[in-house]
This record gives sequence, structure tokens and C-alpha cells, in this order.
Amino acid sequence: MSDEVNGVPCDKLFGAIAKVRDDAEMAQFRFSAHNEWVEGTASRSTIHEWYGMGGEHTHVERFSFAADHPTLGHGHGPTPQEFVLHALVACVTAGIATGAAARNITLHKVSSRVSADIDVRGVLGVDPDVRKGFSNVDVEFEIDADCDDEQKDALLAGGAKYSAVFDIMANPTEVNISRVPAS
Amino acid sequence: MSDEVNGVPCDKLFGAIAKVRDDAEMAQFRFSAHNEWVEGTASRSTIHEWYGMGGEHTHVERFSFAADHPTLGHGHGPTPQEFVLHALVACVTAGIATGAAARNITLHKVSSRVSADIDVRGVLGVDPDVRKGFSNVDVEFEIDADCDDEQKDALLAGGAKYSAVFDIMANPTEVNISRVPAS
Repeated sequence: MSDEVNGVPCDKLFGAIAKVRDDAEMAQFRFSAHNEWVEGTASRSTIHEWYGMGGEHTHVERFSFAADHPTLGHGHGPTPQEFVLHALVACVTAGIATGAAARNITLHKVSSRVSADIDVRGVLGVDPDVRKGFSNVDVEFEIDADCDDEQKDALLAGGAKYSAVFDIMANPTEVNISRVPAS
Repeated sequence: MSDEVNGVPCDKLFGAIAKVRDDAEMAQFRFSAHNEWVEGTASRSTIHEWYGMGGEHTHVERFSFAADHPTLGHGHGPTPQEFVLHALVACVTAGIATGAAARNITLHKVSSRVSADIDVRGVLGVDPDVRKGFSNVDVEFEIDADCDDEQKDALLAGGAKYSAVFDIMANPTEVNISRVPAS
């Protein structure tokens, strides 16, 4: 078994699992983003530093993404809600790829389509009984891999079960928002 | 009062509110994304079509974003979790901007910093009692606007209260994931 399977460095993956099993402090990660309002409904986030495996790190570059509103905005980007959908399928896909690598299963293709419904009477304050977020989210995955259907189903189930973003969406997360004086 | 305040087209905003109040069908939106695995832990989503206000639409361009893992990946993008943080602050910021526009308050600056903790023993399957998602999310906003602190606090509170992404994170969302045959 070579080190990389499906482009996943298995030695590194199993090494990370061993490290966080031995030392819970190594498992404490912190992600962050900095956002600046641009105009109207548009803003731009920068993502660079992260903490994990016992130290401070930076991504290979300073990633930057804008978001906007499709009708009230000026076309700077898709909506924040669509970024959540991107995050969800990207997270589950990474889990499928690492799960397949751990089992030495060669992947040829993983693609997915996610759709989510939202009744905007919630966010527009028209009806307090309508929730602001998605009423439901549906994802369909296609997996082409050197394994049978049962193993593909197991890869997908594992991808969802161990997905941080799936968990963030399916379960409540504590979000604290506060204001500090403008600098 | 001019049509645009802070770059938010107020006539359009109030028009949309009136439309969805009159006809709930106009309030039914659907967002979607298509994702393709790239290599290892990396994948790329495309975001283009959306449904709302009674019809099919497309964004001004076919937006495309990659996500990856910072240590196991190949540097294609930030993590899916960081995209969720971007979505959160972008969504609340848009709410602050529209809320200020609706009250005819001029904004000069809105910036935010979001940090989220995650114990990766959950996603790595090391400890089933550790949740996969964020243990907590902290956001600090700076608002510079032509209003007093009380109004700034009200703008921020409204931005959070009417944020779809805040709601998606703070409350459980139904996520259905299934597999279809590879095409």
C-alpha cells in the first residue's frame, strides 16, 4: 500500500489519529475568518490562520471569498446559504475520500448535487412562525470506485457520520455574537 | 430618502417584502450546488442556478469554490468548516446592512472576526463522545455608523435574529443524503 491512496496521505492520516488519541490537546483546533462589508448586501471574508496539532499555522495562501444577495445585491458572489451547501458537500466528499483511502479503495469519481429549500418570509420578518434557515436539505451523491454498492453505501454513510459540517447543520451549535467598539 | 441606502435598494427590498406577504409562493426559494471531488481531501463546488420569487434564475456568473484539508490536503482551498464561518458572518453582515438601510442609517464600516473551536477527535473517530462539529462559535462585530450605540446593538441583534445561516447553525436542520448510480 503506497502512502497516498486517492491523493490522501495515509501515513499522515493514521499518524494524526494516533497523535490525537495519545494527546487530546493535539486535537483542539480553532478556525477563524475575518469579514469586511463591501456595499449593500455584499461582504468579503479572508481565511488564513488556523490553530491545530498544538500550534499556529497558516493556509498556503490568504483565501478570500465574497458573498452577496442575488436580487438585492450587486453580483459580488453567491449567497451565504449557498456557501453552507458548498461546505456540506465538500466536507462529506473529503470523508468519502479519506474513508476510501483508509480501506485502500480506489475512487474514480465522487460528485454530488445539493438542494435546499428556504421560505424567505422568515428572514424578511413577514411571518415569525417561519424559520429563517433551510426547511430541508437534500443531497445526492454519485460514487464511482473499485468496490461494490454495499461498500459505496458504507463510504457515504461514513462520510456523513464523520462530517463536521453535517453535524453543525443537523445539531444545534452555540453561536455567540457580540459588538466591540469600532477601531 | 433615495432608493439606495448603503448600497441596498430599499424600493426593491420593501417590494420583495410586500410580494411575499401577499403570496407565500413567491417566498419559496431553492438554493443548490454541484460538487466534484478533485483529489485527496479536495473538491470543488459550482453555484449557478437558484429558484425564487416564482421563477428560475441564474447568478451573474458560475461561481466556483474549492475546499481542502490544511494538513492532509494539497492546498486547493480552506476547510469546509471555514466556509461555514464565512457564510455566518456574511449573512449577519447583510442583515446589518439591510436593517440599517431600512432605518435610513448610513453605515461606514462593518467588520467581524469569527473563531470556532473543534475537537477533531470527533471527525477522526477517536472518541464517539466528542461531537464532530464546532463546540462553540464566537463572533465580534465592529460597526461604524451614523447612529448611537443602542441603535448599533439593535442592528446587530436584528442581523443575527434574521440570519438564515445563524438559524441553520443554532438549530437542527434536516439533511437527507442518498446515493444514486454513477452516470
